[in-house]
Order: sequence, then C-alpha cells, then structure tokens
Amino acid sequence: MKNFLLIALSILLTGMGLHAQKSLQERLGFSAETKLLIIHADDLGVVHSVNKATFNALEEGSVNSASIMVPTPWFPEVAQYAKANPDHDLGIHLTLTSEWKLLRWGPVASRSEVASLVDTNGYFYSDCNKLWENAKIEEVEIELRAQIDKAIAMGINPTHLDSHMGCLFATDPRYYKLYTKLGREYGIPTMVNHQIKQLGGEGAPEPMEVINQIFGAATQDYDKDAMSKYYADTLKALEPGVHVMIIHCAYYNLESQGMSFEHPYWGAKWRQNDYDFFTSEECAKILEEENIKLVTWKEIGESMQE
Amino acid sequence: MKNFLLIALSILLTGMGLHAQKSLQERLGFSAETKLLIIHADDLGVVHSVNKATFNALEEGSVNSASIMVPTPWFPEVAQYAKANPDHDLGIHLTLTSEWKLLRWGPVASRSEVASLVDTNGYFYSDCNKLWENAKIEEVEIELRAQIDKAIAMGINPTHLDSHMGCLFATDPRYYKLYTKLGREYGIPTMVNHQIKQLGGEGAPEPMEVINQIFGAATQDYDKDAMSKYYADTLKALEPGVHVMIIHCAYYNLESQGMSFEHPYWGAKWRQNDYDFFTSEECAKILEEENIKLVTWKEIGESMQE
Repeated sequence: MKNFLLIALSILLTGMGLHAQKSLQERLGFSAETKLLIIHADDLGVVHSVNKATFNALEEGSVNSASIMVPTPWFPEVAQYAKANPDHDLGIHLTLTSEWKLLRWGPVASRSEVASLVDTNGYFYSDCNKLWENAKIEEVEIELRAQIDKAIAMGINPTHLDSHMGCLFATDPRYYKLYTKLGREYGIPTMVNHQIKQLGGEGAPEPMEVINQIFGAATQDYDKDAMSKYYADTLKALEPGVHVMIIHCAYYNLESQGMSFEHPYWGAKWRQNDYDFFTSEECAKILEEENIKLVTWKEIGESMQE
Repeated sequence: MKNFLLIALSILLTGMGLHAQKSLQERLGFSAETKLLIIHADDLGVVHSVNKATFNALEEGSVNSASIMVPTPWFPEVAQYAKANPDHDLGIHLTLTSEWKLLRWGPVASRSEVASLVDTNGYFYSDCNKLWENAKIEEVEIELRAQIDKAIAMGINPTHLDSHMGCLFATDPRYYKLYTKLGREYGIPTMVNHQIKQLGGEGAPEPMEVINQIFGAATQDYDKDAMSKYYADTLKALEPGVHVMIIHCAYYNLESQGMSFEHPYWGAKWRQNDYDFFTSEECAKILEEENIKLVTWKEIGESMQE
C-alpha cells in the first residue's frame, strides 16, 4: 500500500512537472518549435483615423489583435465595433497618460477621486515620468478599475490587458503588482514577458502567463526610414515561442497629422507605414514563408482556463 | 433754485432717456439704420476638421466670430490658437450635451459633483430634453462655471457666451437666469435676442445686451440642398439692427464624416457647405453690395463698458 501511494505520488508529480514544463505553444495546441505571433495594433479610440485604419487592418490585413484606450474621445466607436464583432481580439490598453498636444483626455473615474493623476487642466500627464512623480498608487487602482468596468459596461469583452506607453511597467514594483492583480481578479490575461515580470521583484505574484518577446519599431528605424525593413527582418528572424509585435495604425490624413503635431514619433506617417506594411502582400508572404502562425490573446486566455 | 433743479433734473432725465433709446448700432458708433452682422461659427474643439476649417474661415473668409466647446477633445488646440490670436473674437459655447454617436465627451467639473448631467457611461446626454429631465440646476451652474474657468485658465479671454444646442434656453426660467447671471458676474456678453429674453419671464434680471435676430439654416434648407440660397437670401433681406448668423464649419473628410455618423444634420456635408459659402467671393460681394457691416462680440463687450 505504501509503495502504491509512493508510485501514485511519483506519477502525479511527474505529470505536474510535465504540465509545468509544457510551453505556451504546446498548451495552445502547437509543437514547442512553433513560431507564434500576435500582431497587435495599439491605441484604438484616440482618433477616428486610428479606429478606421485598425478596423480595416483587422479585417483585411495580417493584424489580428488590438487594444483600446477607454478614456479617449472615439472610444464609443470602438465599443460599438466590439459589440458588432465579438470574435475580434480586443483588449484594454490601460491608459494613464495623454501625450498629444492638440487633443487630450482625462480619467474615466471622477476627477476628484483620482486628483493625483491629472494636471491643473484636468488632463492626464503627458508622460509616465510625470505620472510616477505625482500619482498615488491607490488612485491608479481606482482609475484602472474604472476603465475596465466601463469597457465591460459598454459591451466589450476584453481579451487582454496591456499598458499604454508602458506606464504600468515602472521601477516601483507596486505598478506591476497592481497590473497582474487586476488581470487575475478580472480573469483577463495581462501582457507580460520575462523582462516585465522582473519588475515585480521577489515575492511578486506569478502572472497568469508570460510570453517570450515583445517587438516594436524604434525611433531609429523611423529616422532611417527603415520601418518596413525592421518588420520584415524581425519576422524573418523570429524564434520559436509566443511573441507580440506592437504596431500603430492610422491613415495619413488631416486628423492624424493634427494628433501628432510637434510629436515626431508614433505619428501620422509612422502609423500609415505600419498600416501599409501589415496589410501588404509582402507581410502575408513572409508570415507564410517563415511558417509563423498567428495567435490571439483570446486563445491564450482560453488555454489558461483549460 | 427750485426751477434750476427741475430744469437740471429734466435735462438729466432727457439725457438718460436718449441714452436708453440709443440703439446698439449707435452705441457701436454706427447710424441707427446700419445693418450689423456677426458671422459666427459654432463648435470649436469637437474635431480637428472643425478647428482647421473654422480657423481658416476666420482668417480667409467672412466669418468673424466663433465659439468654443470647452469639454471637447480638441479644446487644447483651440486654447493654443486663442493665445496666438488674441484679437480673434472667440467666445464660449457653453456645453451640456454630447450629441454624436461615435465620439462623446463629459463634464469639465468632477463627475461626482455633476452626476445629474451625465449618463451611466459618464458622458453628457445626447439632447437638451434628456438634460432637462435629469439635471439639477445647481449642478448645471457648477459645470458652466468650470467651463468658463478652465477656458480662462488655459489662456482664453472669452468675448461672449452662448449655448450649445440652445440647452440654456429652456422653458424653465432658471436656465435663462443662470445664463445671464454668469454673463454679468464674469462681465462677458451673453447672446440674447428678444425671443430668448422672454424665457426669463417677469422679474428676470435684464441681460447686458439684446441683439435683434439670430439666423441659422434649417434642416429643410439642407434637405432641399438650398443652404447657400438661404444664406444669400437672408443677407439680402437683412434689416437694420445687430444680428448673428450662426454657421458650422468643417472640411468634408473622414473625421467629420465619422463625427456625423447616423446624424443627418449639422454633419460633414452641411459644414463643408457653410465653410464654402462663408469663404466665397459671392458672400463677400453680397455683404459689400448690401452694405452689411461686420461687428464682433468683442466690440459689443467694449461698448458696454463705456
């Protein structure tokens, strides 16, 4: 009997070990050698040009995921789109900054409840540093909950959470812990790679999932007019694992030009370039030739529930 | 001595009577027979297309006044423009509604202070009726003060006040009284004609100024594709007095089309038509031929201080 128990325990532990060793690719139903990618467009809601280009890239291009800024002016358009397209992979781009000059936004929570998050005009600060200098972490939590709750109330079923401008990836571990805590509490995967995970420090709760790499064009690529080259090279060099390519779509038009006034990066031209590449035949061909499979946050979330 | 006093009193009363009888045209330095007009573009701040078209119409066209919606997303662009163009005639379009479907906005005041003004998603109601059904008048006052104070804090010197969608011109006289009270308190002229003045009822405080007529194209003009005809006919039939022609400028582009989604009137096409007519040579020629003088709210405000 004792031997039987030992054997049973051994089998159980081996099984658990095997499960723990299973890569995310395998849990998603692929071999460990598969290259899986989420092509992820940020910033839905900011301007109509971003919304329209992103919706089109989701429908006609290789983009297969996007995330939504709840405090932005055109958020109601995104909520309407999400309800009409429940199979699309739409998460929440948790937003604590308002970085443009000519159009700005503030919190979803009542301003008096989150006074440490806003400037004297009632808008979010323009960058993470100003946020971190001023914000009380308990007010950050109030605002993030308000954003998730409002998205759900307006008919969105968020497939994931991530962080606009990376403001939740502060050196202060309280930001990271709040991020993963909210993900666990709402049962929504949070975008975490190994580098981001380190921000929690020792004793931080385990995130629900850890992906391998997060890619995105850098300002140097833009300065060298080499955005498409960066995307093509990155896709061709992709290693097995689950990765995210973060892009920003918009049409190069009056509105997106106004949005990016005196803001050289991530502006109208950058976004039209991203849109063009990720709706191109060249992109689709590279994905096929390199045997890159697209996967969504929705699938990752479902694999976690199994 | 007694006779002298009587004569002096008589002269004084005659003088006061003459002053009171002086028309606004005369107080502005024109003859009583002059036709004075403010060509006034509403809704600055809503979208970039409205801002750019209105700025251009102010600089290149016959438009000589505009008003600003402080709670809207592109308000920071207007504040920047107002600071760079302090001689422009820019007032505040006091805003208590958010009428479009795909982009919306809420109050400037902290939402918890003005909870009766917002729907469950935190946005202003879409029309005046819903506002009047729900709003507490003391919260309307908090919000209107917040809008004026924020405009001033961001560098605007408002030349006048008026009311977006006419929501301050309710049958409930408290709205009208609040409107004229704020104008008097801030020393800013409020747009009031004889019809609007009646809303205050008996015993309402005298407004600082009363203009003659407020014109604007009607939905029937738009349906008949007769907007320009309406404008030309109205200008040609203008009578002596001080009048306001209310128009709405924007470029017919992706953004303004998105703004006016499922909203047939005051949309992208309407606004391009207004822009085209009021920047046309035809309009300038009619103004000249009909001897219509343009006047600004700024000049009216200054005449009141004399």
